[in-house]
This record gives sequence, structure tokens and C-alpha cells, in this order.
Amino acid sequence: MARLISLVEDGAPEVREITAELCAAAGERPPPWVVGLTGAPGVGKSTSTSMLVRGFRERGLRVGVLAVDPSSPFTGGALLGDRVRMQDHATDPEVFIRSMASRGHLGGLAWATPQATRVLAAAGCEVILIETVGVGQAEVDVASLADTTIVLVAPGMGDGVQAAKAGILEIADVFVVNKADRDGAQAAIRDLRNMIALVERPWKPPIVPTVAVRGEGADDLLDALDRHLRHLEESGELARRRLARARDEIESIAVTALRSRFSVHGDARLDSLAAEVVAGATDPYTAADALLATLPS
Amino acid sequence: MARLISLVEDGAPEVREITAELCAAAGERPPPWVVGLTGAPGVGKSTSTSMLVRGFRERGLRVGVLAVDPSSPFTGGALLGDRVRMQDHATDPEVFIRSMASRGHLGGLAWATPQATRVLAAAGCEVILIETVGVGQAEVDVASLADTTIVLVAPGMGDGVQAAKAGILEIADVFVVNKADRDGAQAAIRDLRNMIALVERPWKPPIVPTVAVRGEGADDLLDALDRHLRHLEESGELARRRLARARDEIESIAVTALRSRFSVHGDARLDSLAAEVVAGATDPYTAADALLATLPS
Repeated sequence: MARLISLVEDGAPEVREITAELCAAAGERPPPWVVGLTGAPGVGKSTSTSMLVRGFRERGLRVGVLAVDPSSPFTGGALLGDRVRMQDHATDPEVFIRSMASRGHLGGLAWATPQATRVLAAAGCEVILIETVGVGQAEVDVASLADTTIVLVAPGMGDGVQAAKAGILEIADVFVVNKADRDGAQAAIRDLRNMIALVERPWKPPIVPTVAVRGEGADDLLDALDRHLRHLEESGELARRRLARARDEIESIAVTALRSRFSVHGDARLDSLAAEVVAGATDPYTAADALLATLPS
Repeated sequence: MARLISLVEDGAPEVREITAELCAAAGERPPPWVVGLTGAPGVGKSTSTSMLVRGFRERGLRVGVLAVDPSSPFTGGALLGDRVRMQDHATDPEVFIRSMASRGHLGGLAWATPQATRVLAAAGCEVILIETVGVGQAEVDVASLADTTIVLVAPGMGDGVQAAKAGILEIADVFVVNKADRDGAQAAIRDLRNMIALVERPWKPPIVPTVAVRGEGADDLLDALDRHLRHLEESGELARRRLARARDEIESIAVTALRSRFSVHGDARLDSLAAEVVAGATDPYTAADALLATLPS
């Protein structure tokens, strides 16, 4: 399965055929519940993921984990992450863990994740956890890929909650205040509560205190996730999110196909157009028109 | 000019015409020297940028600054940044400062920056500084947009240098150890020196200690930047980088144009294809083929 994920991530020529087979294999089985988990470095994402895996396993669910490291361009780093994270669940045949290094990756997280998710779903995973560091575009991406998004904060992380304010309210379905036994946990909860009071959407994100390293708060977190899943189902939002994701994926595959047509038919032309733009002989929009004219119809 | 930059960033309908005029206006004037500056939060990027602006101004150069905040989706935050950063140079008519919030932005940093750079170049800026936080894709993007990339580190930032190891050697043309009066500065310099010893490219990035808040090391940094610019010119690398950037920009405009054709001609079709994928009736590759078939030739 790891080899399959590598193939689809890298956009290997076989990916098309594999995807068709995976879709056929998934058949009538309901799609997995995709749970995103994001937060600043140091809030305890790995331990929280591990705690969630344990919780889902206790319910008898087959679990897939995609750990995305947007800062690492090296497979080496991702592999190390694999080993560290695997320790707790290494011997459990019903848990699949995959680290992905998205930086510099073809299409990044947004491209590789649906592909990897499909492999995990075909392998029978009922819940898929996508864990990524909450910085910049990565956390927006993960929220758009997940059914339910958990945003982790921790007290004593300096401006953790403040940084969170920047855009996290739009993406959080559930807030977790991890390391809740530390000083400042109550203040962090209060800050979040004040933020959430301003939310005018039908779903108000709950705040769950946890101490993931000791497994404290696991049941409360699972309950909060369940409530959100029910809300998604009952409101029709789950169907809407899945439709939007399928749209994005189809469009992204179509655009990638068009790009590859450029490189087959327009590569020499693109070089000469770029030289004209650098020399000031034309502007990039006119050059783009000329490039598009090279596309076979 | 701020209004012009907003228009091109937002991909307003006028952007095409404006770009053609800007390119014509730039005419025979040599393109500006684009210097990227990146580093972890807290290393002193703003003060270092300010120090560099002062240095370039003392040489009589017209300077543009693009401060990109990849974590902020809000113009409000970017505007606040503007005001803070403007203080030192607010009254200098030869300095243009622009903050950009790239998160969630159409095409992100990679789209907006060449557009904003062109406006600054047309306004006569001879040096353009692009400052961004060094996390994940943002720092890879900034390096691909700049002629010379400065990577800032600071001692006592915990794993500052260690984090730097992940991928920073490929993008750094000049290393700056800021806050060099603090404990650990020598250790940071030694660590970097050991890393750089492994570099096998023709240009070995120099390491410049600075205390940006007091302007210390400014001359050494400007000298190191000059040496790199000479290296770029003499090796032909400058021409290669500019050509590659023009290629990327043309391709990105062409792909955006194709995407907008989908939304004009294929929107209803995309919805129904997405529904089929969700229902398991087809796979996303077959759906993408069907979508591409809707494109007018």
C-alpha cells in the first residue's frame, strides 16, 4: 500500500489505471470520514493524533493517518516521522500511517492528499486522520480536504491563540486546548470562547481540553467529533463538502493534463516567449495568448 | 501605485492592459534587482529589511519592499504591518512599501509577486526587497521569485538553525546571523559553516553576522549581496533566473485563462461530473477527460 501511495503521489503513469481500480473497488462502501488536525509547532499534534487513533481503534474502526510535513522537502524527514509516530501503533494491522513531505511537491498537499486518501479508503479505512502543521496555506488546504477539522492550541505557546485568530475561526470545527494541565489553559479556553461567540454559522465549534500525552480528554474529543459528523450529515453539509472536493480534484486533474500539453507542444515556444518578455519585447499576457494558441484542439 | 498593485494582485479585468503598459513603460530600463529575505518568526526580518532599505538608500537607489505575510488572510493585518514597517522610511519618497496577505489569495505569493514587482519596477525601483516568513512553501516560492535570497537565522531561537537545515541550503544565497551580540551566535555561525562546507555549487553562501536593530553589519551584508549579484551576472545565472521566472509567469497566466474557460463553459458539467465521482459511478480521471471535452477549441 505504501508503494501504491507513492505511485499516486508522484503522478506515475499508472496512476490513472490505479485510480479507476480503486474507485471501482470502493464501490458501494461508504466513503471514509476524513478528519483534519492542525496547529502550530509544539502544540502536540503527533500525540493528539496517536490518542485519536487509539480512540477510534477502541471502537473497532480501521484508521488511516496521513502526516503531512509542509516544511520538509526530503523523504528522509518524512520517513523519520513515520518511525517516530509508528511506535504506538506499529503492530496494529488495522492502522495505516503515511508521512508525506509536501514542500516542493507537484501540486503540494492539495494534489497528493486526495490520491493517498483514496488508497487508504480502498484499503478499508473508515476514518482518515490528516495531520499537518498549521502554518499558512497548509492549514487552509487541510481544512478544504477534511470533513471535520480540529485546530489544536496549547497554553504557554506565546502568541499561540493570538496567531490562531488570524484565520483559524473559518476552518475550525472543533478546538482542542492541549496540555490543559499547564498554566494559562483557562485563559486560552476563555480567549477561544470569546472568539467563538462572534461566529454566526450554524455550527459553533466546541472547545475540548486535553492532555494528549496522558490520554486525558480523549472521550470528550471523540464525542465532539461525533457531534460534528452528525451535524454534517443532518445539515447536508457532508454531501456538499464531498461534492466540492470532487469538483476540485477533477478540475486539478484537468488543469494538470493541460499543463502537460504545454510541455509537449509548447516547450520551445514557451522558451522563446519568455525570452521576449525578459527583453521587454512583449508582455506576459500577450505571451500567454501565444502559448495557448499552440494547444492542439 | 498602491491602487495599481491592488488591481494587479486581485486579477482585475484591467490587469492585462495595465501590464502591457507597465512593460512598455519599463522599456529599455534594466530590470530591478530582486532580493528575497526569509527566516523563522522572531529572527528580525522587519528590522533587517529596514536596515537594508537604509543601506540601499544611502547609495541613492530607489527601493521597493514587498512584505508578504503567508499566514494572514486579512488585508487588515497587512495594513497594520505596513504602518509598523513604514515608520523609518515613511517620509522618503524614494521608498515604496507594500504588505501583501498571500494566504487564500488567488494563486498565492507566486501569482501576486511578479505583478507587484512589475508595478514597482515601472515606478523606477532599482532594488526590490521581498520579505516573507520562512515556513514551508512560502520560502521556496520567494527564492524562486528572487535574484538573491537572504536567509536569516538568530541564536537562541531553539531549533532555528536545525529547522533551517531542512531545505534552506538549496535556497540561501547569503546567510545572516542576526542578533549576533547574543549568546549562541558563534555556535550558530559554526553550524552554518559546517552545513555550507557540504555545498557543491559554484557559489558558497557567505555568513554575515548582524545586529539589525542597531544597524551593525549593514555594510558587510550589502557587500555580500553585491558579490552575489556580480556572481549572478558573470556566470549567466541572472539571465537564466529571469528567463525561468518569465516562463513560470506566462505558464501561470495561461493556466489561469484555461481555468476560467472551465468556469464559463464547464461549470454545470463539472457539478454533474463531481456528483458521479462522489456516487462512485466514475473516477476523477475519466471525469477530467469529460470536462476537457467541454473546452471550446
